[in-house]
Amino acid sequence: MKIPWTKPDFWGNEIKYVTQALESSWISGGEYLNKLENDFGEILKKKHILAVSNGTTAIHLAFLGLGLKPGDEVIVPGFAFMAAANVSLLMGLKPVFAEVDPDTWCLSAKELPKYISSKTKAIIPVHTYGNVCAMDDIMEIANAFGIPVIEDCAESLFSKYRGEQCGTIGKISTFSFQATKTITTGEGGLVVTDSDDLNKKMLLYRSHGMDRGKKFYWHELPGHNFRLTNFQAAIGVAQLEKIDIILAERKRVSEEYKNILSNMEGITFQKINKDVEPVIWAIALKLDTKVFPQGRDMVIQQLKEIEIETRPGFYASSLLEIYEKHSLPGCEVISKNVISLPTFPSLKNDDIAFVCEQLLKLRKF
Amino acid sequence: MKIPWTKPDFWGNEIKYVTQALESSWISGGEYLNKLENDFGEILKKKHILAVSNGTTAIHLAFLGLGLKPGDEVIVPGFAFMAAANVSLLMGLKPVFAEVDPDTWCLSAKELPKYISSKTKAIIPVHTYGNVCAMDDIMEIANAFGIPVIEDCAESLFSKYRGEQCGTIGKISTFSFQATKTITTGEGGLVVTDSDDLNKKMLLYRSHGMDRGKKFYWHELPGHNFRLTNFQAAIGVAQLEKIDIILAERKRVSEEYKNILSNMEGITFQKINKDVEPVIWAIALKLDTKVFPQGRDMVIQQLKEIEIETRPGFYASSLLEIYEKHSLPGCEVISKNVISLPTFPSLKNDDIAFVCEQLLKLRKF
Repeated sequence: MKIPWTKPDFWGNEIKYVTQALESSWISGGEYLNKLENDFGEILKKKHILAVSNGTTAIHLAFLGLGLKPGDEVIVPGFAFMAAANVSLLMGLKPVFAEVDPDTWCLSAKELPKYISSKTKAIIPVHTYGNVCAMDDIMEIANAFGIPVIEDCAESLFSKYRGEQCGTIGKISTFSFQATKTITTGEGGLVVTDSDDLNKKMLLYRSHGMDRGKKFYWHELPGHNFRLTNFQAAIGVAQLEKIDIILAERKRVSEEYKNILSNMEGITFQKINKDVEPVIWAIALKLDTKVFPQGRDMVIQQLKEIEIETRPGFYASSLLEIYEKHSLPGCEVISKNVISLPTFPSLKNDDIAFVCEQLLKLRKF
Repeated sequence: MKIPWTKPDFWGNEIKYVTQALESSWISGGEYLNKLENDFGEILKKKHILAVSNGTTAIHLAFLGLGLKPGDEVIVPGFAFMAAANVSLLMGLKPVFAEVDPDTWCLSAKELPKYISSKTKAIIPVHTYGNVCAMDDIMEIANAFGIPVIEDCAESLFSKYRGEQCGTIGKISTFSFQATKTITTGEGGLVVTDSDDLNKKMLLYRSHGMDRGKKFYWHELPGHNFRLTNFQAAIGVAQLEKIDIILAERKRVSEEYKNILSNMEGITFQKINKDVEPVIWAIALKLDTKVFPQGRDMVIQQLKEIEIETRPGFYASSLLEIYEKHSLPGCEVISKNVISLPTFPSLKNDDIAFVCEQLLKLRKF
């Protein structure tokens, strides 16, 4: 592809630190892991940070920490990447899919109460594409019902909500350092909480239920292996040193797209809540079917033919065959009409202009 | 510690290949991942090789591939590292703990039939410390009952059974590249099978149930994220180039221990089956309580005081509080009296001699 949808970039000390990490120790733990966890503790101002192997294991760990049991219900948005829903099914939980806001494409606080039952044991707002859900409204409802909130921040690292870092409001928050993300360790993630009890349990679940400081091979609980390696953490530490540049470049990219496409007929940007300063993970637009009568999938195909890689919106849960069906018309409209354009920090303004020009050419008036 | 229990070593191109991998692409897949999978396909002469994030996710993937469901029973040894047992509990399966052979410390074929019920859906022999279970006898029983066998080869990579690589007999085999293992990628592992159907399902479960070649974000099943990164695979590829040296050094280490300790009163080595050419992951000895009246745990403490790091045997399942109890006297004897000595390829003969000398000094006649 001439213009890929994403591209991870080097920012400085990645290879140097990886080499140092490999030359020191590889056995569980290590200085870069400690540094990564400490650095994020300071950034997020949270008490406990656990580095893990990826954003999906982060969610799995959060569910285990909360002690969710087969039959429990968890509320997840019907439009989002389906990591939380899939982990739910793998654990025998019932994912209850909720409508999203038609403009922000994030879990709708207004619709939320109707999905709550006596079996609801967690609510998982997903901060899709870097937007942040209406957390104040969601927390008010969750607190009224006494249901813990897990924020899925896989796509929203460094976005801010009311001036605070995203992922600092819920009982637990999960993050991803997958290759396309703002900070990457290839595969990796974080689980974050202020709760000592939750952290203690999740620390055990992360590594076989064992506390080696106490007893070797003594499993206090049936843990998994969700560990991140020290040398992957080293990459994250190197990137974090350059976070100001990374965020500035991501901001430039999203503003450039906005400048060109904002008032164009047939194109609607994801609405960012007024309380949110987003770090956009992926520029996403809703195409008007009157203006793009060929449909979103054909637009993706047309752009692919001129070597521009784009991605469709997520499938709404109600369109996927593996989930229990209940109609989510709001999610389906977004799902069928959203396209996500190339978004990465080293994407040049010229390339952005070219992508926009080609997209606009595909309109039919 | 003056003499650590384990130490990962560099063998040549690790840093060079990691650097190359980081400089190419990080997005899912990559040339080193392909090479690692292809190389092991040739070594193990198996049709399908899936690189995964660690040995525990390898077992989880095998269980998902077989379609194991809550309430299903799986037979696991009562003395072994408890990854398979813990994944069972996490999936709502019932681990049924079986006796091990008193000499080889591996799943006892003789005792196996009595643990089989109509609910048994898998048998998981664990090739502990690099020994290989009596696979012919186990397969005969498993086949008679039509129960699939998953070989847990986390500790037995490159051991041979009747001249063939370990992990080539069962329906599925799982391996680990964790930091202490013969080949390491920091954290990592493999799942291996000849079955096209199983491979297809496991490939989907490894990465969110998605086949991106077909449709983006379309979840065919509720997959997890068990992916290994390309740059971790690069480390494995570099090590595999030097496998002859690594195996020769591991052999030297275990033979040196044998030379010194073999006929010493109070010390019994794990018995290696006559059909097995082992690659010893960890030298493990059973201490005679008459000769070491202070007990195994005290011996570990005494050696620690002179900076020799050792490890106890695994806890028998019947000694751990998280599993359903049924008495396993054979496993308990091994569990309480086994000590594992420093074992890694770069361990010097002088250090081995020192460890042995210090251990022998602790005997009371």
